Amino acid sequence: MAIILGVDPGLTRCGYALFDSAKNQAIAFGMFQSQPTSEPRDRVGAIAQELRSLVNLHQPEMVALERVFAQANLRSVMGVAQVSGALMSIAFDAGIPLQFFTPSEVKAAVTGNGRATKDQVGMMVTRILKLDEVPKPADVADALAVAICASKRGVNVGTSAQQQWVAAAKKASRRLG
Amino acid sequence: MAIILGVDPGLTRCGYALFDSAKNQAIAFGMFQSQPTSEPRDRVGAIAQELRSLVNLHQPEMVALERVFAQANLRSVMGVAQVSGALMSIAFDAGIPLQFFTPSEVKAAVTGNGRATKDQVGMMVTRILKLDEVPKPADVADALAVAICASKRGVNVGTSAQQQWVAAAKKASRRLG
Repeated sequence: MAIILGVDPGLTRCGYALFDSAKNQAIAFGMFQSQPTSEPRDRVGAIAQELRSLVNLHQPEMVALERVFAQANLRSVMGVAQVSGALMSIAFDAGIPLQFFTPSEVKAAVTGNGRATKDQVGMMVTRILKLDEVPKPADVADALAVAICASKRGVNVGTSAQQQWVAAAKKASRRLG
Repeated sequence: MAIILGVDPGLTRCGYALFDSAKNQAIAFGMFQSQPTSEPRDRVGAIAQELRSLVNLHQPEMVALERVFAQANLRSVMGVAQVSGALMSIAFDAGIPLQFFTPSEVKAAVTGNGRATKDQVGMMVTRILKLDEVPKPADVADALAVAICASKRGVNVGTSAQQQWVAAAKKASRRLG
């Protein structure tokens, strides 16, 4: 496997990272934002277009993202799930495997401790990738961390059943489209 | 406004309805399903492809869907939000306005009572659309109901700000893509 797209999904801030797992280095990372005052459709739609552009440009072999659980703010969880859903659809269309990792899996893979703090994750990401400084905000460091996690966990890329389904869906989509 | 695509979003069952608001009749309605045993990416991705096909084929002027709140089952809410997010991205790409309606808004628009039962909604949908029998399962009747609701509520199609945003996003996407 070469390039992994790691995403920390969100509506207000969506962190992304393109990680070359063979060379153990980051190719690109950053963040997309949308304004809370914009229409929900526009917020999800604009971030999805950015993510699709990344997928088209870098052709990652894998998409990795953080699984979100119930948090304090249900509204924010819904936004995260909406962006995740748009990304799942993009990955499916492109035939790219996608895998979720829990926050503790990500923390454990990067720091060795499933209960590490945000600061510890940022520090270890910086060290692993030999960056000059800690990527900010935390959404960016988290996107890098989930990509590193996916690479360490040796993800099962394209199981046979998945590939058959993608082929069948592409055929069906040509028929319908 | 002519055609409205109403959707009752879901991962296991996703109801859809194409409603001609000028003629007050249903053009098409039905349901997409995905298997709980399939990969999440495949479930969201396959339903999103079906929804995109509907949008391409019928070119609705409006997408209407039910807003979901916290329910008993968070896992199910996440699936609903993921399908909704994929649909929001599809509508944004196509430049089609999308609006959410709460379950009580939908019930009130169709039956006159915001606390109507599923059966009452199904009955009134059947009567309004002069169907021979109640559409089943409830996901299909709910998709028809949300489309009728959008038509009755006289939705604000394409505000100027929305249209400017779509134009800007399309330009940006051409630049990036």
